[in-house]
Amino acid sequence: MFADPAAFLAAAADLLGLRGLTTDPDLLAPWLTDWRGRFTGRALGLASPASTAEVSALVRLCAEHGVPIVPQGGNSGMSGGATPDGTGGALLLSLRRMDTVRRFDVEARRITCDAGMILENLHHAAEAEGLRFALTLGGKGSATVGGLISTNAGGTQVLRHGSMRAQVLGIEAVLADGSVYDALTPLKKDNRGFDLKQLLIGSEGTLGIVTAATLALVPAVAERVVAWCAVPSLQVARRLLLHCDDALGTTLEGFEVMPRASVEAVLNYLPTARAPLAGDHAWHVLVEAVADKAGAAVLRDQVEAAIAGAFEAGLVEDAVFSANEAQAEAFWTIRDSVAPAERAKGPAMQHDISVPVELMPDFVDHASAKVEAAFPGVEAVAFGHLGDGNVHFHAIAPAGSDYVSWQETTGKEISSLVNDMVTEWGGSISAEHGIGQLKVGELERLGDPVALAMLRQVKQALDPRGLLNPGKLVRPAAQAG
Amino acid sequence: MFADPAAFLAAAADLLGLRGLTTDPDLLAPWLTDWRGRFTGRALGLASPASTAEVSALVRLCAEHGVPIVPQGGNSGMSGGATPDGTGGALLLSLRRMDTVRRFDVEARRITCDAGMILENLHHAAEAEGLRFALTLGGKGSATVGGLISTNAGGTQVLRHGSMRAQVLGIEAVLADGSVYDALTPLKKDNRGFDLKQLLIGSEGTLGIVTAATLALVPAVAERVVAWCAVPSLQVARRLLLHCDDALGTTLEGFEVMPRASVEAVLNYLPTARAPLAGDHAWHVLVEAVADKAGAAVLRDQVEAAIAGAFEAGLVEDAVFSANEAQAEAFWTIRDSVAPAERAKGPAMQHDISVPVELMPDFVDHASAKVEAAFPGVEAVAFGHLGDGNVHFHAIAPAGSDYVSWQETTGKEISSLVNDMVTEWGGSISAEHGIGQLKVGELERLGDPVALAMLRQVKQALDPRGLLNPGKLVRPAAQAG
Repeated sequence: MFADPAAFLAAAADLLGLRGLTTDPDLLAPWLTDWRGRFTGRALGLASPASTAEVSALVRLCAEHGVPIVPQGGNSGMSGGATPDGTGGALLLSLRRMDTVRRFDVEARRITCDAGMILENLHHAAEAEGLRFALTLGGKGSATVGGLISTNAGGTQVLRHGSMRAQVLGIEAVLADGSVYDALTPLKKDNRGFDLKQLLIGSEGTLGIVTAATLALVPAVAERVVAWCAVPSLQVARRLLLHCDDALGTTLEGFEVMPRASVEAVLNYLPTARAPLAGDHAWHVLVEAVADKAGAAVLRDQVEAAIAGAFEAGLVEDAVFSANEAQAEAFWTIRDSVAPAERAKGPAMQHDISVPVELMPDFVDHASAKVEAAFPGVEAVAFGHLGDGNVHFHAIAPAGSDYVSWQETTGKEISSLVNDMVTEWGGSISAEHGIGQLKVGELERLGDPVALAMLRQVKQALDPRGLLNPGKLVRPAAQAG
Repeated sequence: MFADPAAFLAAAADLLGLRGLTTDPDLLAPWLTDWRGRFTGRALGLASPASTAEVSALVRLCAEHGVPIVPQGGNSGMSGGATPDGTGGALLLSLRRMDTVRRFDVEARRITCDAGMILENLHHAAEAEGLRFALTLGGKGSATVGGLISTNAGGTQVLRHGSMRAQVLGIEAVLADGSVYDALTPLKKDNRGFDLKQLLIGSEGTLGIVTAATLALVPAVAERVVAWCAVPSLQVARRLLLHCDDALGTTLEGFEVMPRASVEAVLNYLPTARAPLAGDHAWHVLVEAVADKAGAAVLRDQVEAAIAGAFEAGLVEDAVFSANEAQAEAFWTIRDSVAPAERAKGPAMQHDISVPVELMPDFVDHASAKVEAAFPGVEAVAFGHLGDGNVHFHAIAPAGSDYVSWQETTGKEISSLVNDMVTEWGGSISAEHGIGQLKVGELERLGDPVALAMLRQVKQALDPRGLLNPGKLVRPAAQAG
């Protein structure tokens, strides 16, 4: 099928022009390795089309020449979903030149933008009009709208606002044959068949290339209060979550948990950080409540009353409230520094997992004990979005381990054990980071065969030649490893 | 493929037992015509399996014998999606014997129930635990969970709580080959590939048969206030919606509009109904605000302040508030009686349409004028869910028209014109009622060819022999009429 790379590249260069295509190894190199340095691949070249029409024409050209396409957003994914394989036969496709706002309807709180728009720029665009794009995450300076949609990204606001899926009102995508699926018009109700937009969200570029989206905005934050609470166990943290949910309703935006060890790790890692609470506490909870201008005046009283009630109910050992934005930010800095602080401790296997929210406390206890018993010297740490039933479960190698060999041997065994337990508890081996190439084998090993068959049938139907991001997320049964 | 109906029925009888299968014409008859009497079909028999395992075995049997299956919920759909065709070769499949609550997690506000559960019973089950299933609609006494999911039903709470899609946390379905897709476990975050659950929602039984679901519940309503407002135009009604959205935030649950003529029609139709407001007003708006116990105390003040603000801003000519539940119900009775009151006027073509919310006022003016000009004597009436950009657009036949012939001639021309205009304005020819067999031809005529191709590819992939609800929603290109 694939005849002549030179002929393909010449045709692509004609189509895209000088700025639209490069094969220069120096220019390509940064995009051939994922940002965590786990995967490195090769590519025929890097295409950067300037419009949906160019993406469409390019995909048609790839189809003619049988050239696989690897779409890449900000290259800040966690699962190697945007890194090509080692064959060098694929074209890397970046939408970074497509980063404009196509339409901004302030009154209706909606924005339509190209898929290459960077999340932080989207935040700024919304803020400039007194609005807010609710989803945010660590990689906001590089993550793009297209990447966020393709991975159905999560973040810290999911509890209240949902994952990326919940922000998407409309979508435009180029399909495997180059045709353009245009469903950008935002209709609150539309029952013309099953929702194809939903199929593209979270498909990691395997069913189509998202080129634009219409996104929901919410009113700007007028007030926020962060409470830092100490609780004796994750089970109590879960009870505190239910209590806050009742008392705070839709103002509750964040509910993040950290064990003692993680907070200590951050205090060692960040010399400027101070412990929010005195005393020794097994678990820490960051509770964030947010109000727009309609609810701003009463928010602080609400949060203080909610936490006071929790204290009376014996759910909280101690608590402190942010008095201003700087303190709120300082609390979040501690939370956001857990991952790097844990990484600084040494090599670790990281697992982005979910189980039903109510099972999470017992799961963490169970899985931690099991990992630490089976692999002496390994330390298990879980932290993150308890409100979403999603924690990041890290297994830290014994001091002095050689990362590369540990990861390839013991590390893999640990991950296999963790994924087994997650599956047994009815959970997901990828809560928010996607499958990419990192977890495609584990998904094949542990996924429900009925679901796997459906994934493959849909993939085969929409990309029969397998040219869209091959090897990621869903592979033909024959290639499953 | 289809060899011997008698052999199939004998095998099905063996499988399902006496209560599980009937071929008695008297027992079959009520289910062979849709409740509005628009479509009548024939069927081999009516199967009523008692469990998912029986559904699975039955679907396998149908696949072996090449027997098409028409799943049916409460037989209260609006588009003939649950009525078999006239060939008599299909098996009608009802889940009415599967109507139990499988699991109720009150604390987590979730319920898992069989697909045959009737909506009203679900409401009662939730209420008994101080909770609420937010979606409701006129057919709640017959509509089933499976039917609501398969049609992605709407209703009057969509503005705040979304369509059925938004209530579904998990799903179980039997696929075309009889395999059981079990995704009932509710995970707030799960990025193991594109979301297959979303594909089944709204697929009208063409991709699988929903057998159970895990649904989200919300806190019970502790207080509600309904304001009945008069406004001079739909454009002003839209401004009032934006105002209420700002002032009431998440307490705003309903925003329904009715023209003068519809309110008059109800007052004639329901002798006990009284006009909420004195004076003559071009448009009426029902604004509903709802609070759980956390917000109950301040709700009335909030609503009164919001409407007072609207009055000062010149958005409202007059307004009255429900003083108690009985008055709130009385206001809703007027709203809910618009459809039957309009029907009592005489034959009409009804269109369940949506456009972007902000375009709806101008669309209604434009479409009404165009229909009334093109078809002298016809009266165009639009009413419904302005907050969702969804109105029911009725074109009432001139007095004395013969319904059957008018519907088949002028009526079809009117619908064609309305659907053309909706498509031109970027809207949907089916906002909440689905496609079924009623609109399958219009969808083929007016749908985006790229989207139609995707629908067919997915259908072909998941139901290659076309045995699941054939002729509804998506037909092979060769059969498109």
